[in-house]
Amino acid sequence: MVSNSQIQTGEFSTEEQRGLYRAIYSRRDIRTFKSDPVPPDVLARIIRAAHHGPSVGFMQPWDFIMVQDKGIRLKVKDLFDRERQAASTFFDEPRRSHYLSLKLEGILESPVNVCVTCDPTRADVVLGRNSIQETDLYSTCCAVQNLWLAARAEGIGVGWVSILKQPQLRQILGVPLHVIPVAYLCLGYPVEFPKEPVLQSAGWRNRMDLEGLIHFDGWDNQPGTEHTDTESDFDSGSWEGFKRALLDTAG
Amino acid sequence: MVSNSQIQTGEFSTEEQRGLYRAIYSRRDIRTFKSDPVPPDVLARIIRAAHHGPSVGFMQPWDFIMVQDKGIRLKVKDLFDRERQAASTFFDEPRRSHYLSLKLEGILESPVNVCVTCDPTRADVVLGRNSIQETDLYSTCCAVQNLWLAARAEGIGVGWVSILKQPQLRQILGVPLHVIPVAYLCLGYPVEFPKEPVLQSAGWRNRMDLEGLIHFDGWDNQPGTEHTDTESDFDSGSWEGFKRALLDTAG
Repeated sequence: MVSNSQIQTGEFSTEEQRGLYRAIYSRRDIRTFKSDPVPPDVLARIIRAAHHGPSVGFMQPWDFIMVQDKGIRLKVKDLFDRERQAASTFFDEPRRSHYLSLKLEGILESPVNVCVTCDPTRADVVLGRNSIQETDLYSTCCAVQNLWLAARAEGIGVGWVSILKQPQLRQILGVPLHVIPVAYLCLGYPVEFPKEPVLQSAGWRNRMDLEGLIHFDGWDNQPGTEHTDTESDFDSGSWEGFKRALLDTAG
Repeated sequence: MVSNSQIQTGEFSTEEQRGLYRAIYSRRDIRTFKSDPVPPDVLARIIRAAHHGPSVGFMQPWDFIMVQDKGIRLKVKDLFDRERQAASTFFDEPRRSHYLSLKLEGILESPVNVCVTCDPTRADVVLGRNSIQETDLYSTCCAVQNLWLAARAEGIGVGWVSILKQPQLRQILGVPLHVIPVAYLCLGYPVEFPKEPVLQSAGWRNRMDLEGLIHFDGWDNQPGTEHTDTESDFDSGSWEGFKRALLDTAG
């Protein structure tokens, strides 16, 4: 298996590229798990992949709380149940019933939970965090995505439980007040990796057309108000090749 | 090349797994680029990979502003220069000189810049965002990490310029007030993918030992104050296999 000391800097083979894209396209938010445990070596590779996420000023603000204990998980599940109920009040019918019918977590069935946290105080002055304070949170999320993709390549499903209040979760896990519990994840072998996102097949929301989310050289293809130099080489015509290529990559 | 319609749900081959881990381990924050353009089909695959990031309630809050125009990039570069100068005042010597000596961006040399934004209003009521408002930002960051890894697998370097004030960047690109410019990225063929992170080889900060960032069943291996049921099956001994496996994955 690839490790830190075996970094190859050459080009990726076609199959290696396919592996990366397969992980990206077939990664799912998993809420239904088999009871089989995650082998320790697989779990270790997945967590180390997260540790190799990018971070602002190389501050590596993350910690990983590995949770197996049943008592703790029961408390997290109870927190989820209350939040789910509370959140349902913000939906009107028939959306509310639809929401309440969805299975949104696998806290107890999955063999292991992982809470990924962000410690904003890890470095005294952080290079690059002066302008945007949240960059430490951004880094932590990139680490989570590494974890999610590594898990997918190992056949392990990950479900991100976002329906949890952070202060209560912090209390349950004993997380210090200054540390932010960013992601509460359930890991395990999934019953399946569905072909499309669960919320799409459940009719909740569809994947958007990517073409409509692309702008050229400014929002709505227009430079900002600051851009007074209309004589510069502003030339959206040069994007035609990209636009065609984008359509070619559509499923 | 893999596309949306060719999702294979079977196990990953060893080489596919290696491709995923290679991308994760050899991804770097790139600041020095060759002038060669990024082929449109490569750029399209990279952006589509981002669009397949996870998102809370499947809200897909991201937009992508593709920036080639020289005039706009000069303005972004000027914004960076001012911020870099301002940030330097927060470091004491010799840290300040060290900071100012580092090359931290390739805004003008890279053939294309991409600003990834987050629109918190994309969906009226977002499933799963009730408890943690920032989950839309979290989703956007996961999309950025997809982009970064796909780029690596394609031999394209990405540099995240975080030394930019968001309000001014918004103005330069004409981004609406309610939309958050999360990541300003420089893309292009790198002069090299360094073996280790630039900030590490520059002696700024080292990679931390992962072992010290892992907790079991609670911060510092202790359940939170809420956990009064000490008779439950709290058993940190079951983590021994994982601890050994973790050491085996160290570089």
